[in-house]
Amino acid sequence: MDRLIQGVNITPLKIIPAPNGNILHALKSTEDSCKGFGEAYFSTVHHGKIKGWKSHTRMTLNLVVPVGGIRFVVYDDREGSDTFNAFNQFDLGPELHYARLTVPPLVWMAFQGLTETTNMLLNMADLEHDPTEARNLPIDTELIPKYNWQ
Amino acid sequence: MDRLIQGVNITPLKIIPAPNGNILHALKSTEDSCKGFGEAYFSTVHHGKIKGWKSHTRMTLNLVVPVGGIRFVVYDDREGSDTFNAFNQFDLGPELHYARLTVPPLVWMAFQGLTETTNMLLNMADLEHDPTEARNLPIDTELIPKYNWQ
Repeated sequence: MDRLIQGVNITPLKIIPAPNGNILHALKSTEDSCKGFGEAYFSTVHHGKIKGWKSHTRMTLNLVVPVGGIRFVVYDDREGSDTFNAFNQFDLGPELHYARLTVPPLVWMAFQGLTETTNMLLNMADLEHDPTEARNLPIDTELIPKYNWQ
Repeated sequence: MDRLIQGVNITPLKIIPAPNGNILHALKSTEDSCKGFGEAYFSTVHHGKIKGWKSHTRMTLNLVVPVGGIRFVVYDDREGSDTFNAFNQFDLGPELHYARLTVPPLVWMAFQGLTETTNMLLNMADLEHDPTEARNLPIDTELIPKYNWQ
């Protein structure tokens, strides 16, 4: 994998086992990756399907996968960035790698469902949904180098 | 059911269908039930098992169930409350009743797993976890009238 894209962070999270059901940490307001709270929502993605590409001009994403497994691919096309043209891939989920992925504004992101059951992410964003600050490209766009999702 | 306990709220939430996987709303910072952001965490509860009783002296809970089904029971023992001694029950989940349950401080809450697969809640609390502001009682306590969970 290319080195970690500037502004992207991956933070290991705890799963606290309990006899009647586990507790899974997600985000605390005092953590460095919390840039404020605007909106929390879930997104599911079916096995093998890909959602993206998407990038935000102002929003920072804080993503956790509490159910199933999701492959995230992040791409940096910011001219002047130390990691210009880099790709990062993260396979996240409670049984895979339980961690929070922080994606800064202006970086491209897409994600794929890895398991045949439910694959679900929670995004705890610092802004409410605003279509004017989001850019969308189809997964086969020619503006982003082709990524081998397998 | 008794009438809605003072300070408890139930807010219907949207599920937005999409071919590769749905979007499920959870909480926006501008909604009335958002009292600020302190911490988000998940809790799972196995089929038939009950977690609780629990009450907080300062924390407001904002609870959604994105996976499975969970029965919440809320009990009011606040002297002077208009709904003193009332119980409320809410069966929540994406296929059952997709809504957010807001529980104010000083009200007792317990919850039970309703399905044989994963039952998961997300709590978006206005404070970070602080054991000094939480009270716990066993489900068979004599301080709360016996509730018929079925």
